[in-house]
Amino acid sequence: MSWNQNRVTKQLGIDYPIFLGPMAGGTSTPELVAAVSNAGGLGSYGGGYLSPEQLRKAIRDIRALTDKPFAVNLFVMEEVVPDEDQVAAVNDLMQKYRNELGIHTAPVIEKYAESYEEQLAVVLEEKVPVFSFTFGIPTSEQIDRLKANGTIIIGTATTVREGVELEQAGVDMIVAQGSEAGAHRGTFLSAHSASMIGTVALIPALTDYVNVPVIAAGGIMDGRGVAAALALGAEGAAMGTAFLTSRESGASTKHKEAVLNATEESTTLTRAFSGKYARGIRNRFLNEMEPHDMVIPEYPIQNALTRDIRKAAAEQYRPGYLSLWAGQGSRLAQSKPAREIFEDVVKGTEEVLQRLQK
Amino acid sequence: MSWNQNRVTKQLGIDYPIFLGPMAGGTSTPELVAAVSNAGGLGSYGGGYLSPEQLRKAIRDIRALTDKPFAVNLFVMEEVVPDEDQVAAVNDLMQKYRNELGIHTAPVIEKYAESYEEQLAVVLEEKVPVFSFTFGIPTSEQIDRLKANGTIIIGTATTVREGVELEQAGVDMIVAQGSEAGAHRGTFLSAHSASMIGTVALIPALTDYVNVPVIAAGGIMDGRGVAAALALGAEGAAMGTAFLTSRESGASTKHKEAVLNATEESTTLTRAFSGKYARGIRNRFLNEMEPHDMVIPEYPIQNALTRDIRKAAAEQYRPGYLSLWAGQGSRLAQSKPAREIFEDVVKGTEEVLQRLQK
Repeated sequence: MSWNQNRVTKQLGIDYPIFLGPMAGGTSTPELVAAVSNAGGLGSYGGGYLSPEQLRKAIRDIRALTDKPFAVNLFVMEEVVPDEDQVAAVNDLMQKYRNELGIHTAPVIEKYAESYEEQLAVVLEEKVPVFSFTFGIPTSEQIDRLKANGTIIIGTATTVREGVELEQAGVDMIVAQGSEAGAHRGTFLSAHSASMIGTVALIPALTDYVNVPVIAAGGIMDGRGVAAALALGAEGAAMGTAFLTSRESGASTKHKEAVLNATEESTTLTRAFSGKYARGIRNRFLNEMEPHDMVIPEYPIQNALTRDIRKAAAEQYRPGYLSLWAGQGSRLAQSKPAREIFEDVVKGTEEVLQRLQK
Repeated sequence: MSWNQNRVTKQLGIDYPIFLGPMAGGTSTPELVAAVSNAGGLGSYGGGYLSPEQLRKAIRDIRALTDKPFAVNLFVMEEVVPDEDQVAAVNDLMQKYRNELGIHTAPVIEKYAESYEEQLAVVLEEKVPVFSFTFGIPTSEQIDRLKANGTIIIGTATTVREGVELEQAGVDMIVAQGSEAGAHRGTFLSAHSASMIGTVALIPALTDYVNVPVIAAGGIMDGRGVAAALALGAEGAAMGTAFLTSRESGASTKHKEAVLNATEESTTLTRAFSGKYARGIRNRFLNEMEPHDMVIPEYPIQNALTRDIRKAAAEQYRPGYLSLWAGQGSRLAQSKPAREIFEDVVKGTEEVLQRLQK
C-alpha cells in the first residue's frame, strides 16, 4: 500500500489518511491534535462548545505545537429558544442529582450555546487549514468564504442522502459516521432511528453515490479497522475512542477508566446529557433518565441544563453523572501516548494488508 | 489471496469461505443452497420452521442437487407454554388485519413451534455435513453426537461473551452477527439493547477472544464487504440479503421487490412478527405494532399468532403485512441467478485485495 497515492493524503498534504475524531468538551486538547498531526495524520479539534476567544486561543495553541495541517470541527446549529415549562420540568428532574453533588440552585443560563457564526468567523480569521463540521451544512456563502481562504471542507454524514447533500453543497470530503461511533450522532436529515447504519453497510452504499473521498468513522480502533475501511471503499478512517484514552487526551480520569474497562456491550444511545442522541457508556444518570426521554428538550437546551452536574461530577470523581462517550470498539482502547497509538495503527494496517496478500 | 490457505475452506472442503446466510421460512430453498454450494461456497438451509418430515425432504432435495458440503441451520429453543390472556390480547390486536385479509377467525394453534429435538434427530439421521444454529447452544450430549457423526458445528454469536461460550461448548466455527444483519438476532446471553454491535467493532473484539475461525455476518453484500471481513480478522463471510433477491430464493415477489427498492434507512428492529427482535423493512404492520410492544409475547408464540396473516398477505400480494426481512446493505441487492451473485462476490473480493496492494 502506497499511502501517498491516496486522494486524502494528497489533498490534505499529510502522510496517512488517518484522522483524529474531533472530541469536543476538552477531550481533543491542542496537545492531542498536534500529536496526531505530527505523527502524519490529521489532528482534529472539537471546538463546538467554545467561545470565540477560547477557540482562537486553542487554534493558536495547536499552531504553537505543530506546523502540520489540522482540522477544527464545529457544530452547525441554528439558535434555539428554550421553552420555560420544559426547562422547569428538567430542573425538577435534576434537583436530586444537584443535591447529591452539593449544587444548591438550578443554574441561571444566559446563553444555551455559543454562536456557530461567531465561531466560524474565528475559523476564517485564523485561516484554519481544514474545517470539519457536523449536525448540518454551512450556507453556500460560508462555504464560498472558506474556499476563498484555501480551507479544505469536510462534512459529516450518517446516511447516503446526507452524503449526497454534502457533496452538492461543495464539501471536499465526507466523514461517514457508522452506528458504532461514540458520542454525538451527526445526523441532520434522516430520522435518528433510520440513521443507525453500521459502517460495513454505510461505506459501500455511500461511495457508490458520491465522488468526493469518504472517510469511515465508527468502531475503528486499530489497523484491522483501517484496512477494513479501505476495503469497503473509504479513502481514510477517523478514530475518536482509540485516542480518548491516550495520554494527551483531556478526558477525565474517570472517563478514561470507564472506556478502558468497557466492552462492546457497555454503551447505548442516549439524549440524557445533551438533548441529542449520542453513544456513551451506561451509568446511573443515563439509566435513570431513560424513562424521562419525553421530558428532555432538544440540544443545546438539555446540554446547558446538565452542564453544572457534569462539571461537579468531574471535579468530585463521580462517573455516575458523567457523559462517558465511547464507541463500540472500546475493548481495544489503550492507555498510551497518542503517537504510539497512531504508529500502531499505521503498522497494523500495513500488516493486515500484507496478510491479505498471502 | 490464496483462498485454499484459509482454515474455513480447508476444514469444510469448499473453495471460498463465503456462506449463504440461512433464511428460514422458505427463502433459502434447496435450489439456492445447492447453487451456493455448487459455486464453491457453503449453502445453508434455514430449517427452523419445518416439521421433521419437511426437513428430511429438504435435506434430500439438496443432496439431489449437489454433492458439495452444505449446512442445515436450526433454532435452539426450549418449549414455551403460552399465556392464554396474552394470546387473547394479541388476537384482539390482530382482528383488524384478519378482517382486512378475509380471515374470519383467530387460528386454533395446536403447536406453537416445531420441536428442535425432533429436527436435530433428522440432522443426525441424515448425517448432514454441517450443522449451524442460532438462539442458543445445543447440549453437550447433542454436540457429542454431532461430532461422532463427523458433522462440523457452527454457532451464532452477537457479542464476545456469546462467542466465548460457543467455543467452550465445542463449536468448530462461529458466525458473528453484526447489528447490520437482516432478520432474527441470534442473541442468547446478552440483552437485545446491549448486543446491537456493528460488524466493524464485533469482529476484531471477538477474534481477540476465541481461537476457532470467525465468520462475519451483517451488511456484507459484495467483495468490498468480504474483503473488509477478512481485514477485520474474520476468516469468512456469511451473506443473507445478498442472496434473498436471487432467482433461486424462495422469498415472495413482494419481499424481493421491497428489498430491491430499499435503502440503508428502510429497516428497523421489530418484535411484531415473531416475538423475537429481527431486522426488517418498515411497513404498515410493523409501524402499527410499535406502540403495542408490551403486549407482544415471546417467540414462538407471536410467530404462531401472526402466521395466518403473513400467509394470506403473501397469497394476496399485500406487502404491508409481510415480514420483509432485510439487512442494512439492501442498496446493493441484485436480481440475478445465485451463481452470478456468488461469482461477482469472489471476483469483487479479489479486485479489492488487488486494489489494496497498490
